[in-house]
Amino acid sequence: MILTVTLNAALDVTYEVDALVPHGSHRVREACARAGGKGINVARVLSALGVPAVVTGLAGGTTGRAIRDDLRAAQLPDELVPMAGDSRRTVTIVSRDDGDATVFNESGPHVDMASWADFAARFAALVRDAQVVVLSGSLPPGLPSDAYGRLIRLSAEAGAHTILDTSGPALLAALDACPTVIKPNAAEITEVTGHDDVEAAAGSLRALGARSVVASRGPEGLYAVTPEGSWHATPPRLLAGNPTGAGDACVAAIAAGLLAGDPWPTVLREAVALSAAAVPCPLAGDFDAALYQQLRTTVPVERTHAPVSH
Amino acid sequence: MILTVTLNAALDVTYEVDALVPHGSHRVREACARAGGKGINVARVLSALGVPAVVTGLAGGTTGRAIRDDLRAAQLPDELVPMAGDSRRTVTIVSRDDGDATVFNESGPHVDMASWADFAARFAALVRDAQVVVLSGSLPPGLPSDAYGRLIRLSAEAGAHTILDTSGPALLAALDACPTVIKPNAAEITEVTGHDDVEAAAGSLRALGARSVVASRGPEGLYAVTPEGSWHATPPRLLAGNPTGAGDACVAAIAAGLLAGDPWPTVLREAVALSAAAVPCPLAGDFDAALYQQLRTTVPVERTHAPVSH
Repeated sequence: MILTVTLNAALDVTYEVDALVPHGSHRVREACARAGGKGINVARVLSALGVPAVVTGLAGGTTGRAIRDDLRAAQLPDELVPMAGDSRRTVTIVSRDDGDATVFNESGPHVDMASWADFAARFAALVRDAQVVVLSGSLPPGLPSDAYGRLIRLSAEAGAHTILDTSGPALLAALDACPTVIKPNAAEITEVTGHDDVEAAAGSLRALGARSVVASRGPEGLYAVTPEGSWHATPPRLLAGNPTGAGDACVAAIAAGLLAGDPWPTVLREAVALSAAAVPCPLAGDFDAALYQQLRTTVPVERTHAPVSH
Repeated sequence: MILTVTLNAALDVTYEVDALVPHGSHRVREACARAGGKGINVARVLSALGVPAVVTGLAGGTTGRAIRDDLRAAQLPDELVPMAGDSRRTVTIVSRDDGDATVFNESGPHVDMASWADFAARFAALVRDAQVVVLSGSLPPGLPSDAYGRLIRLSAEAGAHTILDTSGPALLAALDACPTVIKPNAAEITEVTGHDDVEAAAGSLRALGARSVVASRGPEGLYAVTPEGSWHATPPRLLAGNPTGAGDACVAAIAAGLLAGDPWPTVLREAVALSAAAVPCPLAGDFDAALYQQLRTTVPVERTHAPVSH
């Protein structure tokens, strides 16, 4: 099974308004709330694909209860660990006039060391049954910056692959634990490496420990540098919409591919198709199943370089 | 004492962001939450002025509990009545770059008839100790449009003055219960009467039953049409900021004036000064005490007409 880790789980609230008017007062036409945070979104996509996924991470307070209630409603196996403090919310404003989304992310509560120790113990038990571990999103305040590094090492000891989707210091501090795959986007890659050039940036991230780098470049698709070679996969047409959902769907496809042992061209084709099928959906974790089926056979994947050993 | 009624009480959440970028993703730098809804804001202003105020209305669910916890922390007497369903939230985005606020208002849960009956019974008991009743804000879904009318009649039977600050059908349906004062703003007055001209609009609202009309015209100040005469009170200088807070401070001043039996020119001077002192505060219910003290002696109040009997 695939274990997804969401250390900064959230209740994702979506407000539909007629139009977003800065400095205006808006009547919320429709409000909905569901469990979120990138790892939970990944589990939701996997579950819709029929791939077994288990959710873990930290959740607390009344917002934590609402997150867990929603996981139960969505039939996602819930192995979240309770923490002191109230889990964060995110608020996404969707304008009915243009369908576009404006997102506000709370940073989340400060995690106490006792909750982190509880989590580490639970993770060590869960990872024994996992073939792939997905570590997604920001670290909540209070956790050590090498938190992901520790979880990657525990996963490797248990024989599980790891996919890390985070940014900044949390990403940098985890590289020497040698995650199987990291999935930075173009902005994250530039922030962390200082390179604008994806190829050079991927090279320096691999030199720091990442086994494979799958860089997402929005509408330009995915650029993968792996021990087996480098590839570029392009979505067949431009789609506008939800970039958070697209990133999480991409990670879900990579996780499913690692679980199945698929070759990289297949993994990348699936990842581009699933990302593109998530873009039109306003809620992260959803995708358009018909669009996915249509795209997964048509995404071009091009080999860009000879295999690079690492 | 002054009894303030908030039938659609809310947890007012404020998010500070660096700058509001439509269609962007924002990190919330500071998040705070407190009990809100216009009647609660009015009680908060009254309490800061040292005027005894009691809060009633409807609140339910985990958000209702958060509202009540905050009333306790603010030492505001809490006579809210529990209801089925979770109370609403509002989210205000404050941009640090320009200090301006963008507001999103949830509509609130559908109120069941049993909760409304419980509230009416509690209100009938509370109003016996009230000299002034403030009825503020929208009606939650499920309540009859004449809900405010019924509460105004109960208040009048108990010998209490009433101040109604609402809009649309809830305002129109309450007029024949003869509220002591209504406080529409320019947009609300035009919506309800079809008149752009405040004097004509006030006349038609009084013909429908309102004893006095205090129309707020933003930076132009207040225009009052009462059985004792008509006045225009102007803020001494333009201030930019929070219009919700200004309206609630204005109602608080009118309520305090009715309680004290002050003449209209005094009431209006206080109302303009307190509104203007609330405008620079990002949270409704707060005001700048030094600015209020400075303004309350300098607001010009000008008589515009001879007394009109009604």
